[in-house]
Amino acid sequence: MAKKNQPLRIIPLGGLDGIGKNMTVLECGPDMVLLDAGLMFPDDSQPGIDLVLPDYTYVLENESKLRGIVITHGHEDHIGALPYLLQDLNNKVPIYSSKLTLGLIEGKLAEFKIKSPRFRPVVSGDKIELGGISVSFFSMTHSIPGGFGVFIQTSQGNVMHTGDFKLDQTPIDGVRPAFDLINRFAGEGIDLLLSDSTNANMPGFTKSEAAVGEALYEVIKEAQGRVFVASFASHIHRLQQVCDAARSCGRKIVVTGRSMLTNTRVARELGYLKIDARDILDAYDVSGIPDSKIVVLCTGSQGEPLSALSRMANGEHKTLSIRETDTVIISATPVPGNEKAVQQVINSLAKLGCEVYDKSQKLVHVSGHGSQEELKLMLAMAHPTHFMPVHGETVHLRAHADLARRLGIPDERIFLLDNGDSLEMRDGSVRVGPSVESGVVYVDGLRIGDTDPIVLRDRQKLANDGTVTVVAIVSLRSKRIDAVEFSGRGVSFTIDDSFSADASASIMRSIEKGSFNYTNSGTDALRKAVRDVLSNFIWSRTHTRPMIIPVVMEV
Amino acid sequence: MAKKNQPLRIIPLGGLDGIGKNMTVLECGPDMVLLDAGLMFPDDSQPGIDLVLPDYTYVLENESKLRGIVITHGHEDHIGALPYLLQDLNNKVPIYSSKLTLGLIEGKLAEFKIKSPRFRPVVSGDKIELGGISVSFFSMTHSIPGGFGVFIQTSQGNVMHTGDFKLDQTPIDGVRPAFDLINRFAGEGIDLLLSDSTNANMPGFTKSEAAVGEALYEVIKEAQGRVFVASFASHIHRLQQVCDAARSCGRKIVVTGRSMLTNTRVARELGYLKIDARDILDAYDVSGIPDSKIVVLCTGSQGEPLSALSRMANGEHKTLSIRETDTVIISATPVPGNEKAVQQVINSLAKLGCEVYDKSQKLVHVSGHGSQEELKLMLAMAHPTHFMPVHGETVHLRAHADLARRLGIPDERIFLLDNGDSLEMRDGSVRVGPSVESGVVYVDGLRIGDTDPIVLRDRQKLANDGTVTVVAIVSLRSKRIDAVEFSGRGVSFTIDDSFSADASASIMRSIEKGSFNYTNSGTDALRKAVRDVLSNFIWSRTHTRPMIIPVVMEV
Repeated sequence: MAKKNQPLRIIPLGGLDGIGKNMTVLECGPDMVLLDAGLMFPDDSQPGIDLVLPDYTYVLENESKLRGIVITHGHEDHIGALPYLLQDLNNKVPIYSSKLTLGLIEGKLAEFKIKSPRFRPVVSGDKIELGGISVSFFSMTHSIPGGFGVFIQTSQGNVMHTGDFKLDQTPIDGVRPAFDLINRFAGEGIDLLLSDSTNANMPGFTKSEAAVGEALYEVIKEAQGRVFVASFASHIHRLQQVCDAARSCGRKIVVTGRSMLTNTRVARELGYLKIDARDILDAYDVSGIPDSKIVVLCTGSQGEPLSALSRMANGEHKTLSIRETDTVIISATPVPGNEKAVQQVINSLAKLGCEVYDKSQKLVHVSGHGSQEELKLMLAMAHPTHFMPVHGETVHLRAHADLARRLGIPDERIFLLDNGDSLEMRDGSVRVGPSVESGVVYVDGLRIGDTDPIVLRDRQKLANDGTVTVVAIVSLRSKRIDAVEFSGRGVSFTIDDSFSADASASIMRSIEKGSFNYTNSGTDALRKAVRDVLSNFIWSRTHTRPMIIPVVMEV
Repeated sequence: MAKKNQPLRIIPLGGLDGIGKNMTVLECGPDMVLLDAGLMFPDDSQPGIDLVLPDYTYVLENESKLRGIVITHGHEDHIGALPYLLQDLNNKVPIYSSKLTLGLIEGKLAEFKIKSPRFRPVVSGDKIELGGISVSFFSMTHSIPGGFGVFIQTSQGNVMHTGDFKLDQTPIDGVRPAFDLINRFAGEGIDLLLSDSTNANMPGFTKSEAAVGEALYEVIKEAQGRVFVASFASHIHRLQQVCDAARSCGRKIVVTGRSMLTNTRVARELGYLKIDARDILDAYDVSGIPDSKIVVLCTGSQGEPLSALSRMANGEHKTLSIRETDTVIISATPVPGNEKAVQQVINSLAKLGCEVYDKSQKLVHVSGHGSQEELKLMLAMAHPTHFMPVHGETVHLRAHADLARRLGIPDERIFLLDNGDSLEMRDGSVRVGPSVESGVVYVDGLRIGDTDPIVLRDRQKLANDGTVTVVAIVSLRSKRIDAVEFSGRGVSFTIDDSFSADASASIMRSIEKGSFNYTNSGTDALRKAVRDVLSNFIWSRTHTRPMIIPVVMEV
């Protein structure tokens, strides 16, 4: 097989239709590497769905080529699909990432009882060979430590993927973006750049994470009572800054919320989060400590009703409840769709009378994604021949494409793809290739599968209109309906004796009138007839259209 | 009856738990006036609900005292409950408001077939006597013309209610806030001020509506193809500015969307919207006109899936569809909860490749509510003895209270109430009075009633987990289950023969095993037993918990 004849294919299986489920296939001849394996959280149009995964059929079908999985950083939209993917693969594939990212993955895999994964920790500057695909890692700054961009070399050309990034010159752990490596790779020639588009609509330069530390310190210092800080549990640098501010103010730290407890433990064990054990208190163990000596680090920055913050605000937390004299800092921004939930928590807190700070009043949050000036800087440093914006909704990808255009990349070398589309690179030149199977897979309970869209449509219908079950008993002897019974859920009218009598009469009458001939049509047609008659009966009586579930039984 | 002994009671029945369903009772001895009668739109926690009304039982119980309904302006959160209230009242009560507000109400009442309401148009400066309660109207600027604040005089003291307002010195129709009247009323003494809190968290001064005109003109002037402007249909001044900008650029106007058509018609008839008939085209009638000569005014600024903008973006509109060469202006801000829907429409438009402007890029929208400097100005001009922030969520009311405190109103004269609480004024002094029946009433189909919270809980459960109906036929002779049948909706597993056989067996086995004794317990207990067995069976098989609807029938 003449490797030289086979293109490098770049196939995004997720990440181009919104912020989430990032997963990109790199395939060159007999070798394949998977870059990230993330999930997406469901929105209102997907009721009852636990998680949304990218459809990775293409990876499974080509498992024999899969040389490794490379993870850029430890956020759910980059690692969340891993447990599912690993369960679906026949062989153990090595997973390459930073120590912290692998530590977070380890916790997830343990929940799924996935034993002894082949973890391969790497550091910035490492280069690994995965068949004919080599991957070099370079540090990038983001809202989680241990994040990488990657530079990929193949016989057909070179690709750089930024990972999620901002260009923070004063990161909390001192690990700056590896400008030296980026420029060295640029010197080797970048034929295609894939870059984070999340903030491509934001003018300027995203503020450094360090800027948040000052605001946190000011608020904590001014506070008279306890201070509660809600943040993403994976934002280790934010947690570090809260702890540092607490210490400077002579306060102890209480950690609460499941993921906050897990992540602080993992990050401390691996040396990413530095807190003196003496500065941490158990939530059960604060009774003797004055309020002015306590900072509580908690989950719930997205207004999740079961999170620590919501429970503490509503008096439903096991050990802590928020009082008038407390101060609450929402050190995060609502993920789109969560705005109202967050506002509800803020209102609950306001009702208690405590002080609430979010980023509209103080700089208690900054984004982890670079704004336009950073994206342009990245494009300028990488000076790629071809460009494909990734990690964003359509508006973000298009805005990023505009930036690239302004930096002189011609339109025909900028690729706005959909999930499942592909790019093919031959000798450094890139064009759109064939598409592969793609889409989404819903996780709902135990089941992992391509949940029928009808299920979601049915759920929305049930949510809006409720349901009425109608059971018709048909006598096999008389071939007539002997009895009808109704049961309603989520409907705004009462199914009482009068309703049942009238609805039964309506069904009986309509079916006797000849609109249905039981002997000729069987139960399927009878079921449909019963459903239609009842639906019209309910409409005329209530002007609602609940979902009718007709059951016909022969006795 | 010695009137002097009976206090003036101020009872907010809505409007203190969010932006919506504003309704305030003013009651003094034998006389009662209702200020506004608004609705609220449901949120995600109220699936399938059409509208939310304030519980106005108190008004109905005291109908004999009701001398009039005063409406400050024509927004749904101030007029939307009127059709329901008028249907529930026995007598025709006069309704006082501006010509435009009454025109908008007239359209609503016509939809409800409510005949010949007693409309009483008023203008700024008018004073009406409603029994012992006199109401004076003064112009206020807001995002709809014809808005008033009111000054209420009674034997017990004076109350000012600002209505919804900003202090716009350059309003589009030239009708400025009636500072002269506000100051004259202040001179007579304002014992209690009720003031709009919507933007109490916003520092500074809200920009004038006129500022939007410039941005609209710039975008329309630069556009090569058609320009689509989505806005609230009631924002007559915004529509005027779009029309003016279109005219200046030599473009004709096309109006589409039901409420946009209705409101432009009403506003033109009443002289609030000034467009030359020759400048308006029918949507069916644009074929000969070049794209560069067209502005389309449409509904859909909130991302509503059935609105004109969504339909035009998705190719589902009867006459117009948006193309790559078009420009779209979202001249509005998403109401909390609508952010994601709006973002989805923007992404659909970006996918088409057209230019999209919202207020993040250009000043194509300003708020209709005053910011902190305006609220402070209002407090300073009115210099009330007592203050009650209204029209807002808890955070807004508290922020407004803070402003009042900073202006020197002592804490004990600032009242943060809940809906249904009351204030009592005697000789100009105010204290908290007894509460009255209050709450929300859901409109769902024809039914107007206090929808059981169980209905909403059931709907959410149905949406999340789907439902499985199980019908068990019990033979009266053998007292045993003869047959079981299953039917599922919105569940992520398949109810096939294998499922049915196993589930039936599980039910039969458990019931034979003695966990249920049919002869002693009757069908209710059997129903519960069947439900529990099936629920556990499904959990063990699928790790989901759909709502089980058990039907037991005896034959």
